[in-house]
Amino acid sequence: MIIIGEKINGSIPSVAKAIAEKDADFIKNLAKLQSAAGVAFIDVCASVDETIEVGTMKWLIDLVQEVTDTPIAVDSPSAGVCAEAIKFCNKPGLVNSVSLEGDKIDVIFPIIADTKWQCAALLCDDTGIPQTAEKRMEVFAGIMKKAKEYNIDPSRLHIDPLVEMLCTSEDGVKTVVDVIKEIKAQYPTIHVTGAASNVSFNLPVRKIVNQAFVVLAMNAGMDSVIMDPLSRDMMGMIYATEALLGMDEYCMEYIGAYREGIFGPQK
Amino acid sequence: MIIIGEKINGSIPSVAKAIAEKDADFIKNLAKLQSAAGVAFIDVCASVDETIEVGTMKWLIDLVQEVTDTPIAVDSPSAGVCAEAIKFCNKPGLVNSVSLEGDKIDVIFPIIADTKWQCAALLCDDTGIPQTAEKRMEVFAGIMKKAKEYNIDPSRLHIDPLVEMLCTSEDGVKTVVDVIKEIKAQYPTIHVTGAASNVSFNLPVRKIVNQAFVVLAMNAGMDSVIMDPLSRDMMGMIYATEALLGMDEYCMEYIGAYREGIFGPQK
Repeated sequence: MIIIGEKINGSIPSVAKAIAEKDADFIKNLAKLQSAAGVAFIDVCASVDETIEVGTMKWLIDLVQEVTDTPIAVDSPSAGVCAEAIKFCNKPGLVNSVSLEGDKIDVIFPIIADTKWQCAALLCDDTGIPQTAEKRMEVFAGIMKKAKEYNIDPSRLHIDPLVEMLCTSEDGVKTVVDVIKEIKAQYPTIHVTGAASNVSFNLPVRKIVNQAFVVLAMNAGMDSVIMDPLSRDMMGMIYATEALLGMDEYCMEYIGAYREGIFGPQK
Repeated sequence: MIIIGEKINGSIPSVAKAIAEKDADFIKNLAKLQSAAGVAFIDVCASVDETIEVGTMKWLIDLVQEVTDTPIAVDSPSAGVCAEAIKFCNKPGLVNSVSLEGDKIDVIFPIIADTKWQCAALLCDDTGIPQTAEKRMEVFAGIMKKAKEYNIDPSRLHIDPLVEMLCTSEDGVKTVVDVIKEIKAQYPTIHVTGAASNVSFNLPVRKIVNQAFVVLAMNAGMDSVIMDPLSRDMMGMIYATEALLGMDEYCMEYIGAYREGIFGPQK
């Protein structure tokens, strides 16, 4: 499982405070903790006024790179800000994210075309999030057409099918599961990602719903996730699911992660 | 989900002590707690010397029936003991269990043939637990032949495909998932059951593996489970999975179970 650590995000109040107060140690500690938990990328999202967003991204990225070699996921709703933030990174990371909204994909894909940067792509366009599996696959086809145009291999893409909240759903997560399966069937080397927590919006004991969802999504082919890697229960659930799905012979990875203290009772 | 509450079992040390000391209140309390958690059946297994097994079963069943109307699952490795225990029950319950071992099925099926009793059936025979999905389906076919012979409708059967421990597995739970899917494809009204905890034998943090397994098994078609209904995390995981699988419109059952205190933080 490719884990994108979500903790350095200015929409989290404690991070917003650290950004406002220039508390470098707070940010560096979040980077170190997530790196130790084995994330593949450390997401960096400033969530500040756009006049200071690029500068804030640089400050955050520099801090992360001071304490870890883990690649950065540059995260902004603005493709322009992502394009600037890429320049601050010491090594290729992940752009989070493009979609078929506006000109995002035409800003980002040319920049990363001849690099090793990866890119998250959301299955939505200027009309919003399509409701049916068929419509989402149309958006997916549009993204893959652009990827081909810019010669970006499917293995560099993390497709986010956009999980919607379960509490207003009549048929559960069937649409997103069908979309995941179809995407992996069409492009076996592509990654399918998602935020683990959107599904449980407005429900009690959200973490249980999130965990069960991740198991079902992994079973369908999801192999990348945007989450808090310090959430020990979810990390354990991911390792357990990989073992149950036959991706971890004799449970060696599961047992190893437990021994490293990534999940299980705090020692 | 059909939950078979497993807490009244003489192989559990505290229950063995209560049986030895004739501690009726201890047994009655276990019955009340499991009934309140919404189980469909309360399993009763004496696990005592066979010379006193029938008498002990009667004592246990009488106690359960004093405090709850929940049907009993009569549980013994001896088909003869199950046949006797059926007589002590006020209403039809579940026989736990038969298989193609010895004459078990020929003892039990005639007794329950013209009743509303249900029956758990394990996919093993005198040669043990078959290793491949194909061989298990052969045992299943043998059980269904007997069911037809005694006119027992598939909807009265809970087939246990016998989950083996993950730690010695090279390909995870694929065999059991394939068996579950095939059974439900052949007989859509049949129940598929299992003990939730065998899969995690010899692994650390077993409850995480058990939870992830139940999600995957439910996704494949498992709709019955033998478990501790006071395990709040597992109960929450089952309600969440039913909602995610589209079996709980607008999450009403999930929210209701939370409000009844079946899962979530202890109040």
